[in-house]
Amino acid sequence: MYRSHSCGELRASHINNEVTLSGWVQKSRDKGFMIWVDLRDRYGITQLIFDEERTPKEMMEKAKSLGREFVVQVTGTVIERESKNAKIATGDVEVLVSKLEILNQAKLPPFTIEDETDGGEDIRMKYRYLDIRRNPVKDSLIFRSKVSMEVRKYLTDKGFIDVETPYLIKSTPEGARDFVVPSRMNSGQFYALPQSPQTFKQLLMVGGMDKYFQIVKCFRDEDLRADRQPEFTQIDCEMAFVEQEDILEIFEGLTRHLLKEVNNVEVDKFPRMLYDDAMRLYGNDKPDIRFGMEFGELNAATQHKDFGVFNSAELVVGIAVPGGNAYTRKEIDNIIKWVKRPQVGALGMIYARVNEDGTFKSSVDKFYDQEDLAKWAEITGAKPGDLVCVLSGDTNKVRAQMSALRMELAERLGLRDPKVFAPLWVIDFPLLELDEETGHYHAMHHPFTSPKPGQLELLDTNPGDVKANAYDLVLNGNEIGGGSIRIHDKETQAIMFKHLGFTEQEAKEQFGFLMDAFEYGAPPHGGLAFGLDRLVAILGGQETIRDFIAFPKNNSGRDVMIDAPAVLDNTQLKELSLQLAIEE
Amino acid sequence: MYRSHSCGELRASHINNEVTLSGWVQKSRDKGFMIWVDLRDRYGITQLIFDEERTPKEMMEKAKSLGREFVVQVTGTVIERESKNAKIATGDVEVLVSKLEILNQAKLPPFTIEDETDGGEDIRMKYRYLDIRRNPVKDSLIFRSKVSMEVRKYLTDKGFIDVETPYLIKSTPEGARDFVVPSRMNSGQFYALPQSPQTFKQLLMVGGMDKYFQIVKCFRDEDLRADRQPEFTQIDCEMAFVEQEDILEIFEGLTRHLLKEVNNVEVDKFPRMLYDDAMRLYGNDKPDIRFGMEFGELNAATQHKDFGVFNSAELVVGIAVPGGNAYTRKEIDNIIKWVKRPQVGALGMIYARVNEDGTFKSSVDKFYDQEDLAKWAEITGAKPGDLVCVLSGDTNKVRAQMSALRMELAERLGLRDPKVFAPLWVIDFPLLELDEETGHYHAMHHPFTSPKPGQLELLDTNPGDVKANAYDLVLNGNEIGGGSIRIHDKETQAIMFKHLGFTEQEAKEQFGFLMDAFEYGAPPHGGLAFGLDRLVAILGGQETIRDFIAFPKNNSGRDVMIDAPAVLDNTQLKELSLQLAIEE
Repeated sequence: MYRSHSCGELRASHINNEVTLSGWVQKSRDKGFMIWVDLRDRYGITQLIFDEERTPKEMMEKAKSLGREFVVQVTGTVIERESKNAKIATGDVEVLVSKLEILNQAKLPPFTIEDETDGGEDIRMKYRYLDIRRNPVKDSLIFRSKVSMEVRKYLTDKGFIDVETPYLIKSTPEGARDFVVPSRMNSGQFYALPQSPQTFKQLLMVGGMDKYFQIVKCFRDEDLRADRQPEFTQIDCEMAFVEQEDILEIFEGLTRHLLKEVNNVEVDKFPRMLYDDAMRLYGNDKPDIRFGMEFGELNAATQHKDFGVFNSAELVVGIAVPGGNAYTRKEIDNIIKWVKRPQVGALGMIYARVNEDGTFKSSVDKFYDQEDLAKWAEITGAKPGDLVCVLSGDTNKVRAQMSALRMELAERLGLRDPKVFAPLWVIDFPLLELDEETGHYHAMHHPFTSPKPGQLELLDTNPGDVKANAYDLVLNGNEIGGGSIRIHDKETQAIMFKHLGFTEQEAKEQFGFLMDAFEYGAPPHGGLAFGLDRLVAILGGQETIRDFIAFPKNNSGRDVMIDAPAVLDNTQLKELSLQLAIEE
Repeated sequence: MYRSHSCGELRASHINNEVTLSGWVQKSRDKGFMIWVDLRDRYGITQLIFDEERTPKEMMEKAKSLGREFVVQVTGTVIERESKNAKIATGDVEVLVSKLEILNQAKLPPFTIEDETDGGEDIRMKYRYLDIRRNPVKDSLIFRSKVSMEVRKYLTDKGFIDVETPYLIKSTPEGARDFVVPSRMNSGQFYALPQSPQTFKQLLMVGGMDKYFQIVKCFRDEDLRADRQPEFTQIDCEMAFVEQEDILEIFEGLTRHLLKEVNNVEVDKFPRMLYDDAMRLYGNDKPDIRFGMEFGELNAATQHKDFGVFNSAELVVGIAVPGGNAYTRKEIDNIIKWVKRPQVGALGMIYARVNEDGTFKSSVDKFYDQEDLAKWAEITGAKPGDLVCVLSGDTNKVRAQMSALRMELAERLGLRDPKVFAPLWVIDFPLLELDEETGHYHAMHHPFTSPKPGQLELLDTNPGDVKANAYDLVLNGNEIGGGSIRIHDKETQAIMFKHLGFTEQEAKEQFGFLMDAFEYGAPPHGGLAFGLDRLVAILGGQETIRDFIAFPKNNSGRDVMIDAPAVLDNTQLKELSLQLAIEE
């Protein structure tokens, strides 16, 4: 038996007990006649004490030899600590060691195993197994485990069945690029790894499974960037005999359950916002509503003056920055520089200060008088002391720019408090999205999403106007989940594929199995998928997902530690080549 | 709202309520003036009634049009049934329909959606979404979900953390062949899919995670055969600061928890058996101990007579078949034919009848007298009325043959009752196994398994004799789990790799990351993995795993329904070729 207690367990009530502990040496203080060692495990830290008077000489020597991260087992007596440490749970006691065994030695770690470490990102990633010993990472992984389990409890209680769908599947294009897996048994053929279990969960609904969920890895062979991993985890759900309202209710319940169980936060009924309103008011389909700063459209209020920039703009839009009149000229110039960065792409920014006395001072006083500016303030909701920032240009572009500015200023103003949770449903998404490069429409959610009742006919004439039974769950400016009511009849699905540019033959080859299934009694159904990585990070109050993934990949897709992928040996390469050759 | 109740919910207490139900038409009986329809969903079946007197004519016509597996929604009043059906939970009531909507039509299904279906295996697999509507498959999937959840509950309660390990990893050979995944971002390089998260869970232990579990898909690119899928699910666990005893206790507890929660069966403390004893007494490292028929070794009792077959045999072994004296000569000839089948491979079988009066009649009376045969009976435990079956030959072969015969006869005698659960720990497995073809030793469990204390030295002289800290959990003759205490220091691990035929360079390239980790304070650790597919099948009282997998693959690795894998298109093939070309 390696231990009778964990290192986080001993209290004053254990005084005089003999205990056995195992763990890592966090640090030791050697005063010569006395040595204190902090022993750490997953559960906490306990102070060990060795002293000349009570510890045999040989053991004193051994204790002196203990380096950081040595793995040791000790037996000893719990005694009261002279100087108590109120900062740790075991701070009332220490263990006077009577037996010390070094279970394993350790090289000096390349960074300190402490909450605030001296190790940079790269070195911490390379030695991820050491990084995981640090509380911030360890606690994040434990937090993720708790979130997963609470998801399972909630959904199981609601009658959902956890069904595993296959990982080696037929490629069914869903927007991103598939990872492929050559099949040795079927030369020249390949499996794909699922981008999501979408078609399988729909087949489960055709199969009468009624309520399905799975916490499942999904794969996209896309270029990596910050916070996007080639493999990611999805909470995948589907229900039969449901309308949008049923789904919103269940998954609002799930989100509320998580906020309560893991964050101890109670949240009111989630507000709902039309996609069109989200774009109009926040320039964004995943608005952060922890703070205001809603867009005010200023076209009417700015036209017919001599300011050509606004007159020629498709959209003139402003936001009120609370307390922004306090910005110096230099600070405002900085903001203007910020919006002109290539990543944001605005050509410039007009602003109007709202003085405490209610007068205005703008960067375009030449064109707009006090009355005009009062209207700007009214439309954007600016109050005395605020600053109105105005951008103009093509609607889509200027909305994106203003949305970026809004988020940036809110960040600077401390309005994005990770301890505040503001969930939001965004509903009535467009069915199709125009790819401006190709001029083709593609499915905004995915090709299985149903149009709103009665809008199917619009597909021929105004495809961009067709709304879908599609919804996103947004939390603090992040899309944490999204879903739709699906098409469940073959004819509608065929029409959709046609509009997405599939020939009849292509649709049949790629999705024939699903359309065939629709002919054997497919029930109305719909679902939702949460991105677990991001959900956990947001609930955990973090900006990035990396601490919540035990072994993340770096930006070149390599495992942080093992530096995968590995090059295959020649035999394997030759076999693969052979398989390909047969096909060509 | 598609339904107020499920089809399994209505009882006499609902009489006179107005309800809305949705589901599939199981069947309908049309008596002209009256139509009964059985409406089915995941939860049960409810009888609907339409009759000339109370149902509008138009609706009668619509009801007449309903075919099997049509998806319908009805609203109506719950009424008492005239002829109650005690066989179903809703059998006291029926619903007099006032509103009928056909939500989706259905083509005639290719087999009947009933517990005993008329569809053969192939057709049921092709239309798996229809097969899943049948109770045996549906209930199996629900059963699996329950088992998974109970595993999670037990382990979470015990402090285990669910940590997701990566699926796109570096290839680390573990016996079977890896599936590989070309990386688009790293041309010429490939990920492998994990055969198990073995190295990752060990790194988590080095990382101080202490208790880890995961229910995780694993992949082996092996030839398929019955009940072996290229992707399978593992309950994967690892603990730090543990000895074998700690692990057996936790996972015996898990198994007992499952038997109680999902089978309502209480089981005593699991017996433990040495590997050597299992081989000697059952010829098998996963003995089915629901019944006796233990092997009796008869070498001493059969030598020095004139029967050359036994004299020259390395092993002469017998079992007592309870009541086997009742077999006719023809039946015994049939058994002899059975053991001579190429799949079993015995050259013949000697037998001795134990008559009710205690006398014997054997097939080798020429060589062995009554006294000799009495010894056979004593050693095999045969009683009057039994039959002693004896095989002889090379020890390994004859044990395998006798084990097969024992299982076959037990099956015929009805001794393998799927409702009886006889778990067993088999412990002290050999560390290494001799590959008789190549003459090389390989790791019996895996290269990370630790030898028993003090046996490391034996590796040089008697490698086959070294025992490992390795254990299997056996249930009803199936290995449902296996694990070991791992090596946790670099030196021992290096010695192991050397004995397994790795050069120092190979060991470093393939497992360097793990051995490096061992230098930074690796705790003693060990673990166990359960094969979920088989565990669920055995708990569910089934011989095969197929009903417990939603979308199994057939023997050529193709998805039963979607007929994956698919051939990639030319662009994808060309890119892959290019990647390979760069490497060559």
